[in-house]
Amino acid sequence: VTIETFDINCDLGESFGAWKLGDDEAVMPYLSSANIACGFHAGDPAVMRRTVKLCLEHDVAIGSHPGFPDLLGFGRRRIALQPEEAADYITYQTGALRAFAEAAGGRLHHIKAHGAFFALLRDDASLASAAAEAVLRCGGGAQVYWPSPSEGVAFCDELRLRGIDVVPELYPDLAYAPDGALVIEPEKLWTDPVHVRSQMERFLSDGTLTANDGSTVPMHEARSLCVHGDGPNAAEVARVCRETLEAAGVRVAPPGSA
Amino acid sequence: VTIETFDINCDLGESFGAWKLGDDEAVMPYLSSANIACGFHAGDPAVMRRTVKLCLEHDVAIGSHPGFPDLLGFGRRRIALQPEEAADYITYQTGALRAFAEAAGGRLHHIKAHGAFFALLRDDASLASAAAEAVLRCGGGAQVYWPSPSEGVAFCDELRLRGIDVVPELYPDLAYAPDGALVIEPEKLWTDPVHVRSQMERFLSDGTLTANDGSTVPMHEARSLCVHGDGPNAAEVARVCRETLEAAGVRVAPPGSA
Amino acid sequence: VTIETFDINCDLGESFGAWKLGDDEAVMPYLSSANIACGFHAGDPAVMRRTVKLCLEHDVAIGSHPGFPDLLGFGRRRIALQPEEAADYITYQTGALRAFAEAAGGRLHHIKAHGAFFALLRDDASLASAAAEAVLRCGGGAQVYWPSPSEGVAFCDELRLRGIDVVPELYPDLAYAPDGALVIEPEKLWTDPVHVRSQMERFLSDGTLTANDGSTVPMHEARSLCVHGDGPNAAEVARVCRETLEAAGVRVAPPGSA
Amino acid sequence: VTIETFDINCDLGESFGAWKLGDDEAVMPYLSSANIACGFHAGDPAVMRRTVKLCLEHDVAIGSHPGFPDLLGFGRRRIALQPEEAADYITYQTGALRAFAEAAGGRLHHIKAHGAFFALLRDDASLASAAAEAVLRCGGGAQVYWPSPSEGVAFCDELRLRGIDVVPELYPDLAYAPDGALVIEPEKLWTDPVHVRSQMERFLSDGTLTANDGSTVPMHEARSLCVHGDGPNAAEVARVCRETLEAAGVRVAPPGSA
Repeated sequence: VTIETFDINCDLGESFGAWKLGDDEAVMPYLSSANIACGFHAGDPAVMRRTVKLCLEHDVAIGSHPGFPDLLGFGRRRIALQPEEAADYITYQTGALRAFAEAAGGRLHHIKAHGAFFALLRDDASLASAAAEAVLRCGGGAQVYWPSPSEGVAFCDELRLRGIDVVPELYPDLAYAPDGALVIEPEKLWTDPVHVRSQMERFLSDGTLTANDGSTVPMHEARSLCVHGDGPNAAEVARVCRETLEAAGVRVAPPGSA
Repeated sequence: VTIETFDINCDLGESFGAWKLGDDEAVMPYLSSANIACGFHAGDPAVMRRTVKLCLEHDVAIGSHPGFPDLLGFGRRRIALQPEEAADYITYQTGALRAFAEAAGGRLHHIKAHGAFFALLRDDASLASAAAEAVLRCGGGAQVYWPSPSEGVAFCDELRLRGIDVVPELYPDLAYAPDGALVIEPEKLWTDPVHVRSQMERFLSDGTLTANDGSTVPMHEARSLCVHGDGPNAAEVARVCRETLEAAGVRVAPPGSA
Repeated sequence: VTIETFDINCDLGESFGAWKLGDDEAVMPYLSSANIACGFHAGDPAVMRRTVKLCLEHDVAIGSHPGFPDLLGFGRRRIALQPEEAADYITYQTGALRAFAEAAGGRLHHIKAHGAFFALLRDDASLASAAAEAVLRCGGGAQVYWPSPSEGVAFCDELRLRGIDVVPELYPDLAYAPDGALVIEPEKLWTDPVHVRSQMERFLSDGTLTANDGSTVPMHEARSLCVHGDGPNAAEVARVCRETLEAAGVRVAPPGSA
Repeated sequence: VTIETFDINCDLGESFGAWKLGDDEAVMPYLSSANIACGFHAGDPAVMRRTVKLCLEHDVAIGSHPGFPDLLGFGRRRIALQPEEAADYITYQTGALRAFAEAAGGRLHHIKAHGAFFALLRDDASLASAAAEAVLRCGGGAQVYWPSPSEGVAFCDELRLRGIDVVPELYPDLAYAPDGALVIEPEKLWTDPVHVRSQMERFLSDGTLTANDGSTVPMHEARSLCVHGDGPNAAEVARVCRETLEAAGVRVAPPGSA
C-alpha cells in the first residue's frame, strides 16, 4: 500500500505567563497539525491565542491538548479521576481552545490527551465511555490522536462506537518496547537525527519500526507522527521527518484533509 | 409604555470543588436567565456542567460570567489588566462555558462580567475595544448584560458598534446613589422583601427607582433585573420580583425571546 | 492501665476565600488540638491566621495539616509524587502554618497529613524516608498524628528512627474493617452520637473498638481521637467524645502536655 | 565616607515546575544575597529547596521575596489588597521560605517585596502598619531591602518604628528619573556593562547616580545594589558590579555581616 498523505504533529503552546517553553516558531514550518495546551497543565489564554494565530499563519491544523489541572507537575503526575471529572476536563479545555480557534477564523481539527491524562485514559477503562462521550459532544466532529496501537484500548473503542475517527500515531523520537509500548519513563528523547531518519525510512519501506531490543514493531495503522517540541533539537527532528516523508512522495497534511 | 417581557437573572454556579456557595436549586424556579461562573473566580468544570443542566431543566437562559483569575479573592479584587488580557479572559471562559452549554443541547444566550472585572471594564476605557471584539468573536451572537445606565460606558458603546445587544439591568437588592450609580461597597444587600417589592412596584409604575437619599433614579432602559444569589434569602427576593412582575401582567423571559 | 490524658483533634481551617467549610467556632470548645489546612488543598493565609487565633483563644494545640496541591479535589485525589516532592510539600506547608502560629505567640505542636496525601504516605514506602526527614527538619520537635495501627507503616518507622513521637489516633465516627483498617470509601461518617458514645465507652473499658462486622479491633496504642469537622453534627460528636472521656476521669489534653 | 562593605542582591528561584527562568547558577558567584520567590508569583517548593541549597553552597544570604498570588501575571499586575491580606501574604510566603532555609541549616536574612506588591506597598500607606507588623512577627529579625530613597515611605517608617533595619538599594541596570524614582515601565534593563560600570564608578566616587536626563540622583544611603537575574546578561552585569566594588576596596557582603 502506498501512503499518500501523512501528518506531523507536535505539542505546542506550552509556555505559561512569563515562562517560555519550546520554540514554537522554529518547529512550525515542518508540521501539519498542532496539539495546543489549554491552561490546565500548561498554556494560558494569551499563549493559546498566539499559538492559534501561528497555526493559521502556517496552515497547521489546530487541536486541543487537554491535561490534568496540575501546572506544578506539568500534567505528568497521575491524578486519580472519576469518569465525570475526566469528561468535564476534556469539555472545559477543548471548549476554551475551540473558542480561540473560531475567534481567529479557524476550527478545531482534533483532540489529543496530554501526558499522565493520556496514560490514565489508556489504563483505566472505567473512564472510557464518559470521556468518549465528552469528545463527541464538545468536539464538533474533531478527530482524536492516539499512539499506535489503538486496538484494545477501551477509550478508542468507545470513540469509534460514536463515529469518531481515531488517528494512530507513531513516535520517531521515543523508544519502543518489543510489544509496541512507548518507553516514556525516563522521558529520554531519541533526538539523534540519524536514528529518527532510520526509523522513518523503515516505516516508509515496510510499515514497521525498530524496538529498543532490535525487534520489529508493526505500525501499519499509523497516519500521523508526533515530534516532541520540548526536545533540544525539535525543529531538526521535525525537519528530518518531513524531508523523509516528502522524499518518499508522501504529502504532509493533517488527517482527513482532501 | 407597557413592558411586555422582563428578565430576572442571577449569578449561579459559584460553588468550587468541595465548597458550596449559594442555593442554586432554590432560586432557579424564579429566574429567566443565569450568569454561570467559569472557573476563574468561582465554578469548576463539574459545577459548570451541573449548573447548565439545571438551567436547561428550568428553561433558564445560559450566560457566561467571566471574572478575574483570582479564586482566592472571588474575583472581587481589581487586577490591572492589559486590553488583550481582558479579551483573552472573556474568550477563554466563555468558550469553556459555551462548550458545556452546547454539549448538553443548549446554547449560550448572554455574557455578563463578574465583580471587579465588571468594574474594570466600566472604568478603563482602554479595554473597551479589545473586550468588545472578544465578545463578538467568541459569543456567537450572545447579548451582554450591563447595569443601567449603560450610556457613556465605552465598553457598551463598542459592543453596540459591533451590533451586539446590550441589555440594561436594574438591581432591586442593591442601593443606588442619587446619580444612579450602584452602591456596592460595602456589599450590603437590601434583602428586605418589602424594600424589594417597593422598588419593583415603583419601577413598574413609572420606570424609576428610589436612591439611598430618597431621590429618583431613572431606569427606563432596563430590560432585566439581577438578584444576588449569595444573599441570605435569595430565593425569596427572586420570588418577590417575579410575583410583582407577573402581577403587573409582565411575562418573565430572557431578553430576545419571541 | 488507666488513661490519664487523651487528645481530641479535628481538621480545621478548611474554608477558602469566599467559601466557608465547617463550623470551627462550634467544635473548638471540645478539642485539645487542631489540624489546620495550609493552603494546598484548603485554607488560605487569612483563614490560617484566623484559625490559629481561634486555637490560641481556646488553648487548643496547633498542628499543620499538609495536603496535595489540589484545591479542586480538596486533596482527596491521589497524585503520584516523587519522594522529594512529598518532602517539599510538607516543608512548605508546615513552614507557612508555623509562621502564623509563631507570629501570634503560639507554637507548632504537631503535623498530620491530609486525605490522599496521608493515604500515599501509608501505601508508598518509597516516600517514607524523605518525608520523615522533612518532618524532622521543619517541625521543630513537632509530633506526628497517625491513625492506629501505626506499626508496620514505613513512614512511622522512619519518624521514630529520628526520635519523632508518633501519636496513634482512633476515629470514633468512621467505620473499621475487621483488620483495623479505616473504612473511608465511601466517606460515610457514623455521626450517630449513640454509636460514637458506644465506641468511646468500649475503648475506655478495654482499649478496643467494634469493627463493621461486629468483631473486635484493638486500639490500645491510641492517645488521640479525631472528629470530622465537616460532619453535619461535628460539635455534637466532639462533645460526646469529651463528655465520655471526662466522665471516665480522663483529662482532655494534647499529647506531650504535662 | 569610605564604604567598607556593600551588598549585591538578585531575584532568584523564579523557575516554576517544568519552566526555567533565569540562570541562577551563573549569577550566584557574584552575589552576596538572594531574594527567593516563594510560590505565589514564581518558585515552587522544589525550586525553593534547590535555590536555598545553592545559596548555602555559595555563602549567599537568603531572603524571602513575597509577591502577589498571581503566577499568570508573574506578580507584576497590581491587585488591590486590604491591609490584612498584604500582611498575611508576607507571613505565609516568608514562613514557607524560612522553613526551607532552616531545614537546610541556614537562616532567613532579609525580606524584599516583589514587583507589583512592592509598588503597592510603596504607594498605599494604608497597608504600611499591618505589613510592617507582619515582617516583625514572621521575620525573626530579618532586614528589609528597599530601593533608595526610603525616606517618606510609610512602610519603611513603620518598619523602622519597630526596630527593623531597612537596607536602601540602588539599581545599576535600571534607569532613574531626575527625582530619583526608578523607571520600571517599560521594564527595559540597561544591561550595557559600560553603563553599569559607569554608574557604579560614579556611585563609588561621590555617592550619586546619573538620571535619564543626565542630572544627578543622590544615593548616599544605599547599602546594597540589585541586579536583575532575568536580564540577558545577568551574570556579566553582576560580575561588573562586583569587580567595580572590589577594585575600590569594598568588601562584597550582606548587610549586617560582621
